[in-house]
Amino acid sequence: MTEHSLWRFSRALHRALNERQFEVLAPLLDDDVDWRMYGPIDLFPFFGQRRGKLEVLDVCRQVADNIRVHRFDREAVMLGVDTAASMIRYSLTALDSNKPISLRLAHFAQFKAERLVSMRVVIDTFDMVEQVLGHPIELPQTA
Amino acid sequence: MTEHSLWRFSRALHRALNERQFEVLAPLLDDDVDWRMYGPIDLFPFFGQRRGKLEVLDVCRQVADNIRVHRFDREAVMLGVDTAASMIRYSLTALDSNKPISLRLAHFAQFKAERLVSMRVVIDTFDMVEQVLGHPIELPQTA
Repeated sequence: MTEHSLWRFSRALHRALNERQFEVLAPLLDDDVDWRMYGPIDLFPFFGQRRGKLEVLDVCRQVADNIRVHRFDREAVMLGVDTAASMIRYSLTALDSNKPISLRLAHFAQFKAERLVSMRVVIDTFDMVEQVLGHPIELPQTA
Repeated sequence: MTEHSLWRFSRALHRALNERQFEVLAPLLDDDVDWRMYGPIDLFPFFGQRRGKLEVLDVCRQVADNIRVHRFDREAVMLGVDTAASMIRYSLTALDSNKPISLRLAHFAQFKAERLVSMRVVIDTFDMVEQVLGHPIELPQTA
């Protein structure tokens, strides 16, 4: 039984983010990979859509420039033959401010021939922005 | 081949939200169901954790009081024997303001004997809050 593509991809991604070992990640990305992290692009330029291996490596470099991953807990995971989805709780440091950030995300990944062809990431972005700011966002009562 | 619990649950949930047919939803909830929608509780009291059938029915009533679902597109779905995860794009109306809201969420659900025992929902909450406010949140450049 072969290891699911998710586990190899996850190890390579975290080595890329924390140790800048992008040469381990590159061969696991399809040339035409479709990558979407939903979130406020104006605040965090690494959000949004990227297409193709070069753009995805580039955005991973941007993420690596901004954060350090201390720990992640996979709270839920589902594996299909060539698909995977997880809910993950991350403990990070924002490198510019040295602030600890704790965030929760869900991702849906699709692989083909053991390479990533599609990644979609949804993040609890309001909580993330408040932590990066270091204080609650003041808003009128809405609900 | 029986229908996956997700599909029956999804139909019942949307009937509960839009038509207030909570008696269809109730028998599909485990007595001890664990329900967590991550988001800013101060702004939207229906976020947070609920435990047990009564609390979950209650929070679904709160959601039904606040929004109307117009359309949802399941952009990704994974089904296990008793588990399911989806990424869904919703088109809603906020009932108090009559504003259209479009949001993306990911959910992980677990069933036991065809009843929901666990639900976790991650939402792109920053985008959601901006839409409810009706204007961008003004923030200092952070990244």
